[in-house]
Amino acid sequence: MPLRRLVLALCLSLALPAAADEGMWMASQLPEIAPQLRAAGFSGDPAALADLTAAPLNAVVKSGGGTGAFVSGQGLLVTNHHVAYGVIQYNSKPERNLLELGFAAPDQAGELRGSPDFRVLVTERFERVTERVLKAAAGKKGLDYFDAVDSASKALVAECETQRGRRCSVASMDYGAEFYRIQQLELRDVRLVYAPPSAIGKYGDEIDNFMWPRHSGDFTLLRAYVGADGQPADYSPDNKPYTPPGHLQIARDGPRDGDFAMLAGYPGITYRHRLASEFAERIGWGLAANVDLLDALIAIIEREGATDKDAAVKYASQLASLKNNSKRFSGERTGLLRSDAQRLRTDAEKAMLDWLRSDAAARCDSGAKCLSAAETLRRIGLVQAQLDAASATRERDLVLGAILNQTQLLRAANTLQRLALERGKPDAKRETGYQRRDENLIEAQLKQVQRRYAAGTEQALLLELLRRYRALPAAQHVAEFDAAFGSDEAGARAVLARVYGATRLGDEAARLELLKAEPASVRADDDALLVLARQLQPALLRLEQERKQREGELQRLRPAYMAALKRWYRSQQRPLFPDANATLRVSYGRVSGFSPRDGVQYQPVTTVAGIVEKHTGKEPFNAPEPLLAAIARGDFGDTKDPALNTQTVNFLTNLDTTGGNSGSPVLNARGELIGLNFDSNWESVSASWWFDPRYKRAVHVDMRYLRFLMEKVYPAPALLAEMGVAAP
Amino acid sequence: MPLRRLVLALCLSLALPAAADEGMWMASQLPEIAPQLRAAGFSGDPAALADLTAAPLNAVVKSGGGTGAFVSGQGLLVTNHHVAYGVIQYNSKPERNLLELGFAAPDQAGELRGSPDFRVLVTERFERVTERVLKAAAGKKGLDYFDAVDSASKALVAECETQRGRRCSVASMDYGAEFYRIQQLELRDVRLVYAPPSAIGKYGDEIDNFMWPRHSGDFTLLRAYVGADGQPADYSPDNKPYTPPGHLQIARDGPRDGDFAMLAGYPGITYRHRLASEFAERIGWGLAANVDLLDALIAIIEREGATDKDAAVKYASQLASLKNNSKRFSGERTGLLRSDAQRLRTDAEKAMLDWLRSDAAARCDSGAKCLSAAETLRRIGLVQAQLDAASATRERDLVLGAILNQTQLLRAANTLQRLALERGKPDAKRETGYQRRDENLIEAQLKQVQRRYAAGTEQALLLELLRRYRALPAAQHVAEFDAAFGSDEAGARAVLARVYGATRLGDEAARLELLKAEPASVRADDDALLVLARQLQPALLRLEQERKQREGELQRLRPAYMAALKRWYRSQQRPLFPDANATLRVSYGRVSGFSPRDGVQYQPVTTVAGIVEKHTGKEPFNAPEPLLAAIARGDFGDTKDPALNTQTVNFLTNLDTTGGNSGSPVLNARGELIGLNFDSNWESVSASWWFDPRYKRAVHVDMRYLRFLMEKVYPAPALLAEMGVAAP
Repeated sequence: MPLRRLVLALCLSLALPAAADEGMWMASQLPEIAPQLRAAGFSGDPAALADLTAAPLNAVVKSGGGTGAFVSGQGLLVTNHHVAYGVIQYNSKPERNLLELGFAAPDQAGELRGSPDFRVLVTERFERVTERVLKAAAGKKGLDYFDAVDSASKALVAECETQRGRRCSVASMDYGAEFYRIQQLELRDVRLVYAPPSAIGKYGDEIDNFMWPRHSGDFTLLRAYVGADGQPADYSPDNKPYTPPGHLQIARDGPRDGDFAMLAGYPGITYRHRLASEFAERIGWGLAANVDLLDALIAIIEREGATDKDAAVKYASQLASLKNNSKRFSGERTGLLRSDAQRLRTDAEKAMLDWLRSDAAARCDSGAKCLSAAETLRRIGLVQAQLDAASATRERDLVLGAILNQTQLLRAANTLQRLALERGKPDAKRETGYQRRDENLIEAQLKQVQRRYAAGTEQALLLELLRRYRALPAAQHVAEFDAAFGSDEAGARAVLARVYGATRLGDEAARLELLKAEPASVRADDDALLVLARQLQPALLRLEQERKQREGELQRLRPAYMAALKRWYRSQQRPLFPDANATLRVSYGRVSGFSPRDGVQYQPVTTVAGIVEKHTGKEPFNAPEPLLAAIARGDFGDTKDPALNTQTVNFLTNLDTTGGNSGSPVLNARGELIGLNFDSNWESVSASWWFDPRYKRAVHVDMRYLRFLMEKVYPAPALLAEMGVAAP
Repeated sequence: MPLRRLVLALCLSLALPAAADEGMWMASQLPEIAPQLRAAGFSGDPAALADLTAAPLNAVVKSGGGTGAFVSGQGLLVTNHHVAYGVIQYNSKPERNLLELGFAAPDQAGELRGSPDFRVLVTERFERVTERVLKAAAGKKGLDYFDAVDSASKALVAECETQRGRRCSVASMDYGAEFYRIQQLELRDVRLVYAPPSAIGKYGDEIDNFMWPRHSGDFTLLRAYVGADGQPADYSPDNKPYTPPGHLQIARDGPRDGDFAMLAGYPGITYRHRLASEFAERIGWGLAANVDLLDALIAIIEREGATDKDAAVKYASQLASLKNNSKRFSGERTGLLRSDAQRLRTDAEKAMLDWLRSDAAARCDSGAKCLSAAETLRRIGLVQAQLDAASATRERDLVLGAILNQTQLLRAANTLQRLALERGKPDAKRETGYQRRDENLIEAQLKQVQRRYAAGTEQALLLELLRRYRALPAAQHVAEFDAAFGSDEAGARAVLARVYGATRLGDEAARLELLKAEPASVRADDDALLVLARQLQPALLRLEQERKQREGELQRLRPAYMAALKRWYRSQQRPLFPDANATLRVSYGRVSGFSPRDGVQYQPVTTVAGIVEKHTGKEPFNAPEPLLAAIARGDFGDTKDPALNTQTVNFLTNLDTTGGNSGSPVLNARGELIGLNFDSNWESVSASWWFDPRYKRAVHVDMRYLRFLMEKVYPAPALLAEMGVAAP
């Protein structure tokens, strides 16, 4: 439907706003973009933002799987309800279900011990270590380059982690151009202080997920504790509240349409600076191919479940995950097509390459660091060659990936055989994921199989995947797989019937026994599925080496592309942020609604009227009676929005976020806390590749809604006072 | 969930706009509301609007099942595509499907003959005949009153229809308070001039039905022809275009948010002035009871269809209709609850009755016509007694209605037996629906049974309905039904198995033979289903008489309530319009979007961007390539909206409309044609009972979209010139 796309692009180009607010900035970049920050309305000192150990960024922490922020000098921190979910769940019992009831600690002594695995990480140092990482890699290529970077990074981490209570990591910026070591204080005693009932914290749940307008109170208050010596410690009643290096002040007033807003957090991964050819591959093949494969698996699981109730129950979780991924891939494709991302990225790359060949670029602005245009283009060509090599087997890699990851028993057999192999090495040399510290997780996975496996469904899934494998061109075939599964449907059926009929891996005790067994005995075991896994292993190891070789080459070569991009941006006085990589980033923008489609305008702020409108009394729209009663009273006090004359709930900004930004604090122009990020809108599911200012929005809890709940619904006056926002 | 409703009402009451635009005014009332019209922005002379035979109302006609308007002096008229659908279908052949292709007559000779049953009715006289209708009814009650009014009305119609080419009717205003005779010129030769393809005319079809934002080109141009003598005539190539008494001028500019708008048309039925107790009955019982019954029937048809493919096909249409009705009843209930209609209507009625008992009301303002408060209250009490009597058997009437109307074969048997009974009378005395002129329709229905009947499904439906009937309290039982179907499940099953096993009515030829048979032989026929129908007939006739008796009483008594309401309105200087009754009405208001729910704002005007966004290439979102190409060119010429800088498609107003207003012309402040009404939004499905200014909107085609299509997509320059809007 090329005409359709053309027309769509044309219609939409008319509506493009003048200024985008794209950018997930490293803190160190903020002084560089000070003029933009000030122009956008920030009234603080941009230079102060560069220091991770100074206010306000020293209040922002990694919290569980998301982000959090300290809101008092006594270790009180706010994060999302869904980020702290495990902590609440850990404290819930059938007779006192805190997920259902919510929780407000009567005092500090009444705060509840968190789940043992929940961590709060406070960044203490963020140092550039590029030279140390790349030193040993110099002159190397491919797999050697990969291994050199990997070893150097591991050494830097080990050195840093000799300090007690610290967790360290090395992050690569701009795809291997720069490396940074991050040192974080690892707080292990984190307690539950205040949580609304789930009916507020995840009001609307899966139905409202990704949706706007939204009405969730997705927040929880935790408190970090340390030992008597002020250092991180396991839970102990003798621990004392942690004194953070800084904390945020909650704003008294709230967001209004167009207001400046900024946000700090740990966005996971974006692909904005990938090559135009990678956009083309993703849009033209990857997304649709994934949807096609996932939908085929979905159909099989549903078909099997229709006649086998037990299988339906066991595969419910895998089915939900497949459906969610299929929906997301579809949404991403729709979004990228709607934004005409491929054409725009191609045009931008062409402009950059044209500039690179120009006289202006030839006058290198930073001396010896500038690669020549010819050398840059040569390296980009080599990057493309690696991408092309990967593309040549993309169909195979997709289907093999599903064979390895969408099965339960075959995956268990592969894991057991790989572990047996790795156990023959010194622990430090074992492959990541198969070291001694990973064995607990492997055991949990092997146990979990029991609740997720049905022989009929797994064989049906494998039959379909093998059908797709056999349909691949000969060049994409893998000898070990051909040998193992035969060359036709009947052969594959026979192999699967024989192997699944004979294996004892369907038995949990047998799997756990194999986990404890000597590596040699596992490798000699004649269980049919273990034999099959052993037969496939050489192929899997070979493909893994090939992947690492490619990754090494990309790490070595892609920085030339990034350097050219940076120089081109600089030539236009435009700063460039690195793609997200789970390190701390800052975004700025404004409170902003949007038009999801012709004729519809989404307002940037929702109100309690929407809670009542959505309320059905049934999950997930079962607003608690105390909330409904408080809304009915209409007594919103100082948390009422003066313009809307009612209580607000959630709001939208155009801040640049992605997965990992859950719980990120949203600040106003004065650096005060106005909201808590917790989701994105459905229209921005494609934003990991392309930031479209018309559609990219982030969804936040209005801090006034948090205060309303804590003032009027489930009162916690002492906590409000501790946060400096006592009710008047 | 009473708390929920209370809270909802409270939240929403905050948002109530100051001024409503409710009102479906009789043309004769318009001088009375001249100040309001002028204040709203109408720049013409309100007094001129009162004359149905003068501009602009003399251009507004009944057209097929909807409304239309003349747009040239040569009989050219514009109406909805869905109103003229039968005319286009009549001219469509497999090899040249005009529904699919659209049509533009090259010249007048190329205009296509319409379907023989399509009529255009031009109102010539509208005269008050209250005294003539009520003369013979004076002093009568109940059934006698009903029959007297019925006879007098029939006589008035017969007298009027002695004029050649005229169709006449008598309409009751304010539930029997006043009667008007309407004389209309009946144009029978109506030809197809211009129609867009269905992919434009009903873009979005069932999916977008009732939805906003909307993107339909729901219009068609027809031309009325008359005989050489200027009088209505059957089609003949010698006929000439009809010269209408007036026609509308199409506006060059289009609607903008907040602009004045007015509309004229033939709204079918509203219940706005029903008693508060009737609102309570509808909201508290009727809607939910209907949904409950329909959903039970839906479940049965779906269950039967799951195992019987033939039944699934045969009941598809009935199933769709049941689902549509269930959805509408649900939506109406949701809307009435959201608007808190019952409380508001009760409060308003109480205020009226309080006033009626006051000194002010006692000083009757129009002499002898004022009933005393006591007499008014006595009559309202009698109205309520009739309503209470109806309520006492409401459950029975609902379930018997479904037994009679939701069955195919039993309904056919009842029809045949009733026809046999009526055929024993002179034609003029036969019951409406069973006169000689109705026999064609009955034959069509008896034939249609064949495509809609499956024995298993009908018996399953009847078993459920009889189960519900047996569960009724004894007071609601009907002796003939008890006798016919037994007192328990086993008995009902046995009766149905015996009757449906033995009847020959499942055979089309048998049914049609019975239609032609002598009445006496039908009444003596021993077919099991005919015997059953004969057994039920005395009950059905008795219930019909009871209903007529009640209707007669309501006609006699309800005018007292309406008179009180009118006096009360007058005391506040507020005019009152009669509930809709398919006579010509005028609404005024403004172009206006709305907020369907918290956080969402619907814009009042849609653009071609939405056509492209919705386009999937598959019905009903298959925009034709010429349209997409024209949009892509972006050359909208003089039909482009200057503010939006693109081509508009549809727009919303807050005009008061209901079913029957399809095709109504929408006029601007200068009386020029800016749009064509074609639908309402989903949120206003409850407006037949309650006009909620926050949600009640009407959906129109922007005349600039019509002109764009006729200028740039499927050009018809001669027609544009004829309408006075030639492209510049």
